[in-house]
Amino acid sequence: MRSSDSTTIDVPESKKDVPESSAIGKGKAPLVAVVVKQRGGWKRGVAIFDFLLRIGAITAALAAASTMGTSQETLPFFTQFFQFQASYDDLPTFQFFVIAMAIVGGYLVLSLPFSIVSIVRPRAVGPRILLLIFDTVALTLNTAAAAAAAAIVYLAHNGNSNTNWLAICQQFGDFCQQVSGAVVAAFVSVVVFVFLIFLSALSIRKP
Amino acid sequence: MRSSDSTTIDVPESKKDVPESSAIGKGKAPLVAVVVKQRGGWKRGVAIFDFLLRIGAITAALAAASTMGTSQETLPFFTQFFQFQASYDDLPTFQFFVIAMAIVGGYLVLSLPFSIVSIVRPRAVGPRILLLIFDTVALTLNTAAAAAAAAIVYLAHNGNSNTNWLAICQQFGDFCQQVSGAVVAAFVSVVVFVFLIFLSALSIRKP
Repeated sequence: MRSSDSTTIDVPESKKDVPESSAIGKGKAPLVAVVVKQRGGWKRGVAIFDFLLRIGAITAALAAASTMGTSQETLPFFTQFFQFQASYDDLPTFQFFVIAMAIVGGYLVLSLPFSIVSIVRPRAVGPRILLLIFDTVALTLNTAAAAAAAAIVYLAHNGNSNTNWLAICQQFGDFCQQVSGAVVAAFVSVVVFVFLIFLSALSIRKP
Repeated sequence: MRSSDSTTIDVPESKKDVPESSAIGKGKAPLVAVVVKQRGGWKRGVAIFDFLLRIGAITAALAAASTMGTSQETLPFFTQFFQFQASYDDLPTFQFFVIAMAIVGGYLVLSLPFSIVSIVRPRAVGPRILLLIFDTVALTLNTAAAAAAAAIVYLAHNGNSNTNWLAICQQFGDFCQQVSGAVVAAFVSVVVFVFLIFLSALSIRKP
């Protein structure tokens, strides 16, 4: 009992007697706070970069969907029974591309609030894991659409003599150009998604 | 100076006088250790599941590559100048498929040691982040190969009347079946990769 009393009395005494130690104590507290803030700040920077990348990916995905969706060309000559016309919905793969890229664009818009939550609370892990999981699914959909359309665009450009599939880009040059542009935009979006997943993986990690 | 001396003496005194407090301190230590061990055990289970999934993905990826790589069919009739034959290397997309799936299979084999490191040291974050990042890249390659081949297989099955690309599966039925099987195996590998990324994301998280 005596010893516990003496300690409780000693603590204020030492504070009064040795002001340097209390100064060190006070000096340490902000130092720790600065370190914590810095860690939060590093994650906040990643979160802001994540937000900007998402806006870039939205642009790329919606540009891909709309470029493909508006691609059609009507040749200036026609016979009595037939008018030569190419449109994206002549090929099921291009229809899938438009739908998939619209879904990816919509998902990216819906993911922006979660990205904002990561900026406001840089150390919260929940929203980032949620974003990483859904980003992975969206990446798969986006890559599938881009690669399938790329395979068809390649065929439209070069044809294939072994299977007697002729190139159609000699006739429908503008159509092919527009479709190729859409595929390139989709691959830009794929690259942005891979970066987004890298960033999420690095910032989920314990600091 | 006097006060600091008195505090250093008081601390062992209080330990001797009040053994209950030290007992509480000892009681707490094993409790914490048990919790830590349990957390490690949960992560170890995830790591073992990760390893098994990787072996499944290796099987699927190499099966896809070899099925596609051995796919060829020679029709039993021929003209004086021409023998009807279909092989995977008639179509550039299928060549890309074989190469990409072989790369994915090779990467998966090389990733097994890192997966074993995660089993041995369940709380190490480094190998898991490394695996997550490379898994994402491999997923993109795998999805691109699978989707591009699927687009061509769809065309081979159904043809396209708008572009005058005729279906070749009426003639080369066995070839088409083999190629379709390879595409299915590649999509199985894609699904396994998505699961692998989910598992990595959940286990990188601070317990």
